Amino acid sequence: MKTKLLRRDFFKKIFAGTLVFLIPTFVKKAIARQKDHAPLLSKSNNETLKTIHSLRTIHGNFKDQPISQGNLDTILQASIQAPSGSALQTYSIIVIKDREKMKRICGYQGAALLLYCVDYNRLIASAKSLGHSYNPDGMQIYITGTTNTILAVQTAVIAAKALGIDSLTTNGIHRGDMQRVWDEVELPEKHCFPLIALVLGYPTEEPKYHKGRLDGPGVFHNEKYHLPTKEELAEITRKYDDDELHIRLSDDWKADHDHYLDWLFTKRFSRFSKPISKETQAFKMLKRGRFVDMQNS
Amino acid sequence: MKTKLLRRDFFKKIFAGTLVFLIPTFVKKAIARQKDHAPLLSKSNNETLKTIHSLRTIHGNFKDQPISQGNLDTILQASIQAPSGSALQTYSIIVIKDREKMKRICGYQGAALLLYCVDYNRLIASAKSLGHSYNPDGMQIYITGTTNTILAVQTAVIAAKALGIDSLTTNGIHRGDMQRVWDEVELPEKHCFPLIALVLGYPTEEPKYHKGRLDGPGVFHNEKYHLPTKEELAEITRKYDDDELHIRLSDDWKADHDHYLDWLFTKRFSRFSKPISKETQAFKMLKRGRFVDMQNS
Repeated sequence: MKTKLLRRDFFKKIFAGTLVFLIPTFVKKAIARQKDHAPLLSKSNNETLKTIHSLRTIHGNFKDQPISQGNLDTILQASIQAPSGSALQTYSIIVIKDREKMKRICGYQGAALLLYCVDYNRLIASAKSLGHSYNPDGMQIYITGTTNTILAVQTAVIAAKALGIDSLTTNGIHRGDMQRVWDEVELPEKHCFPLIALVLGYPTEEPKYHKGRLDGPGVFHNEKYHLPTKEELAEITRKYDDDELHIRLSDDWKADHDHYLDWLFTKRFSRFSKPISKETQAFKMLKRGRFVDMQNS
Repeated sequence: MKTKLLRRDFFKKIFAGTLVFLIPTFVKKAIARQKDHAPLLSKSNNETLKTIHSLRTIHGNFKDQPISQGNLDTILQASIQAPSGSALQTYSIIVIKDREKMKRICGYQGAALLLYCVDYNRLIASAKSLGHSYNPDGMQIYITGTTNTILAVQTAVIAAKALGIDSLTTNGIHRGDMQRVWDEVELPEKHCFPLIALVLGYPTEEPKYHKGRLDGPGVFHNEKYHLPTKEELAEITRKYDDDELHIRLSDDWKADHDHYLDWLFTKRFSRFSKPISKETQAFKMLKRGRFVDMQNS
């Protein structure tokens, strides 16, 4: 049965290959032109939208199967195509294949880890090499730098998915003592901050369902900000409880809580029930990095 | 001549359409299967990678041509497919079609402006509606919130491009007095910060060339951080000067400077020649928003 299927697949591929070969070039070009210019309303006939709608997060259940260097290079080259303020590319991407190191850095393992850091040290070094002084200090620099960085991250996520490679974007690097991340990959103390870890790989098993998302009031706003009304908030609560929508993080609420959001705010995020009262390590690291608070910037 | 070209195009399309129609379903399926599973090394045969490599920033030269509501909805629905820490979707997307308002908010105009704000107010309101207290304060909250937000921004950028719609991601919202942005769209003062404006539209003219990007040392790092050597910095300087690579922001350096990077650091970014010495408005706004510095967080 399996052999028969394989043989049928083989002939289909041969036939498909031949047929594609037989389509004259000018016809291919005409098809391509149509693809480029026609407004495509539906996600169902647009490969890029299909890729985006197939995105999924794998929580560390990646096979011990490597990604080819070719695919990795394709992902990296795609990543830097993201828009970048003043064409500065204010980031460093550390490519890590050492699985033990991945675990120590972010708590997860995959075929590769791309550690995305907002980083101005290349630019500072360039300025210095030409005899100039460049001091990218302060919060505005941090905002622009991190924006450039995360635009590149998501471009890599989508490019990877286009190659059939799944991913996890995790701030596991900020859990525990963050200094380990600087130590593990020898990051500069100043003007550099590890922002997110992108773990890439192939999942050990297919997720049981595709995650949904909350849309509507509270997410999309029309012309001006609209805080959801009482009725809209009730609808949001209902949507998170809905077993079909899959927009929640977990089913752990079901045993002891009326609603998923009850569990979220009283259990999962119980630490936020009171305003915070001490300096976080993230803030300390950003202060050391000259991104915040020197001269109260 | 034009008529002849048009007629030729017409017949090509008819022919292409017929031919595609004639391909048997099982062959189409075989082609689709190949697309789904084969590792695709090259950007040339993968629609998603082609979309990513066709990304370009339009600096406000957008036609006065609207985007259909269908396309706008497709972009918004794609945007929220981005990964989101703890499935929280810590953002608000304000859709603005009023062209005068766009100009006032970010300095640019297009068919639509999507104002992406890191925003915890929906979550706070949900908590309150269920009788809970949720205080998303401090820098770690800001980092996670902004990361979720920019992941959604770039997903919108790529989805728009897949529909043939170009874009500009701009921090024009942070130029001048930022308070105007809060006023224009009635943003909450706390736990909300407008992060980036995404202007969408169709360009008035095709850009003359496709922008390149810096790759190699200083951008990609292998297993650990590597600050470019003297030779690598010289190569980076050379790449920015290269007329074929198009990785620089502008050609304004050519009149008075030896290198593009000389211009960048002494002219464009002359304000960074000395360390900053006063609090930026961005920092003030983030303090007001409880993202930084209350109890030195």
